[in-house]
Amino acid sequence: MAKARFDVTGIGNAIVDIIGRCDDAYLAKIGADKGSMRLVDAGAIAKIYSGMGPATEMSGGSAANTIAGVASFGGKAGFIGKVANDEFGRIFSHDIRSIGVTFASAPVAGSQPTSRSLILVTPDGERTMNTYLGISTDLDHSQIDGDLIADSAILYLEGYLFDRDDAKAAFRAALAQAKRAGRKVALTLSDGFCVDRHRAEFLDLIQSGVDILFANEKEITSLYETSNFDDAANRASRDTRLAVLTRSAQGSIILNEGTTTKIDAVRIDDVVDTTGAGDLYAAGFLYGYSQGHPLETCGKLASFAAAEVISHVGARPQAQLAQLACEKRLI
Amino acid sequence: MAKARFDVTGIGNAIVDIIGRCDDAYLAKIGADKGSMRLVDAGAIAKIYSGMGPATEMSGGSAANTIAGVASFGGKAGFIGKVANDEFGRIFSHDIRSIGVTFASAPVAGSQPTSRSLILVTPDGERTMNTYLGISTDLDHSQIDGDLIADSAILYLEGYLFDRDDAKAAFRAALAQAKRAGRKVALTLSDGFCVDRHRAEFLDLIQSGVDILFANEKEITSLYETSNFDDAANRASRDTRLAVLTRSAQGSIILNEGTTTKIDAVRIDDVVDTTGAGDLYAAGFLYGYSQGHPLETCGKLASFAAAEVISHVGARPQAQLAQLACEKRLI
Repeated sequence: MAKARFDVTGIGNAIVDIIGRCDDAYLAKIGADKGSMRLVDAGAIAKIYSGMGPATEMSGGSAANTIAGVASFGGKAGFIGKVANDEFGRIFSHDIRSIGVTFASAPVAGSQPTSRSLILVTPDGERTMNTYLGISTDLDHSQIDGDLIADSAILYLEGYLFDRDDAKAAFRAALAQAKRAGRKVALTLSDGFCVDRHRAEFLDLIQSGVDILFANEKEITSLYETSNFDDAANRASRDTRLAVLTRSAQGSIILNEGTTTKIDAVRIDDVVDTTGAGDLYAAGFLYGYSQGHPLETCGKLASFAAAEVISHVGARPQAQLAQLACEKRLI
Repeated sequence: MAKARFDVTGIGNAIVDIIGRCDDAYLAKIGADKGSMRLVDAGAIAKIYSGMGPATEMSGGSAANTIAGVASFGGKAGFIGKVANDEFGRIFSHDIRSIGVTFASAPVAGSQPTSRSLILVTPDGERTMNTYLGISTDLDHSQIDGDLIADSAILYLEGYLFDRDDAKAAFRAALAQAKRAGRKVALTLSDGFCVDRHRAEFLDLIQSGVDILFANEKEITSLYETSNFDDAANRASRDTRLAVLTRSAQGSIILNEGTTTKIDAVRIDDVVDTTGAGDLYAAGFLYGYSQGHPLETCGKLASFAAAEVISHVGARPQAQLAQLACEKRLI
């Protein structure tokens, strides 16, 4: 098997985040479940937007944020996602390319706009997302760049994309291509509600060849329909070679063929905006893993990257993670 | 004369800022003069954008930032500016309305997009702006809302708009409307190069009825074609009732019919991004003035608001200035 030119290639929704602050009362008013992601239609997003305060726009998307993190660590990364030929499509494409990520997907003309997510940040720093899935979920086979996937040590799949059938099929095709090339496949479950919507298919995908599974407590207990985290973790470790499970401030655990590695969360004094915490956790882990670091180092890089991203507004790193990680003697 | 319902109404370019970081070498490469604003065409802006790092988009525009500051202090404010019926037009309109500003200008369909400025922030926090004036400089008489102007204690005009003839005519019409209603007129010279381009017409406008003139050292010395600041200040104090002159870290002076009030700059430890410093200075001053505070208080509110905005990325306040100013016993 040839050495891969890319460390990680991600497939996910190509989204521009519209980030603003609100209080808990506004979340209640619009019926949003704090801390979660929900899909909204064009009418709902216009209504929520009109009621929220001034906002900042920046590129987001779960797997795209992870890929931006891998690049910030100095990893060679690619991204596959769908944008429209509009202002937000140009913003997304610029931002991801400007950090050295290979993003070959050409913008697609049509009636669907580039996807956007209204992210409401409450005073406690928690983020609640209202996502309008425009063109990004229309991903299908034709966008899957087989050469890029075959040339990437790890293929990283975003669970959020499971919300449409064509995208599911594209995922399966991409997984098969990665496997044929002898590469590793990683998957994030993305969101508890997302798991609820697609439990059986997630399980099927995991059992059909996912090497590394990322999930938080809510997602993994939802997947196995249990309220017991340890029970869910045990089942995950049977279904996949490497289960990486996060528990917010309680840190995370890495389950690998019978052994468990515990990683502490990196404490920060002021949580500004939790958006991207899970995405950057995955970035640190995947970067470390792609460089052959021990699992404990991968976990520490993961916690470190998550801590950086929640210390400021926005879901992508604002510091050069490679340099910071070096200064902190993590690598 | 009836009491005005609005404290301040601004007329200026309606711009969305695209803010990214760069080093001094990149400024040299693109031929930009550090700290200034230059107008670029569509081709140049695309080239500069493609060479810069990941960016954040947020509403800007000089007078619009000032108006946002007035609103943040609790002032009743209006804004007149031109946006297209596009994504950036929606962002601009949302952000300014979401803070309680009256912005009645409807988006205009056509071939020109909403204006945008690529703002490059160097490690020293200085900002250099490359502005693509799309539709916003097409402002003409038809956009001037005479009722709003007649109902505002102060009309605030942005010098940047002087770059097109229709806008100049619209300015003169607005000034005349304000005067007829017995209101005050304030003008900012905006930028040294802008003054170079339109010196005679700026002088003509000032002498034809501007009550409050805002300028920094570069702008006021350019206006009077002298290298001596004191000389320029003296001439400004003869041409206008109130000349408010800023000198960055050296603070500012307020010249009012023979008396001079000196205001210290508010020192902050970490200058993150100087974008909006002058705009927010004007906001603090105009808010204080509209509430009948003494000139020294107006100047202190001005310096305080400028200090807040340079402590973070972006040209509009991120804190509630009314509350902060109260906590600091400024008002």
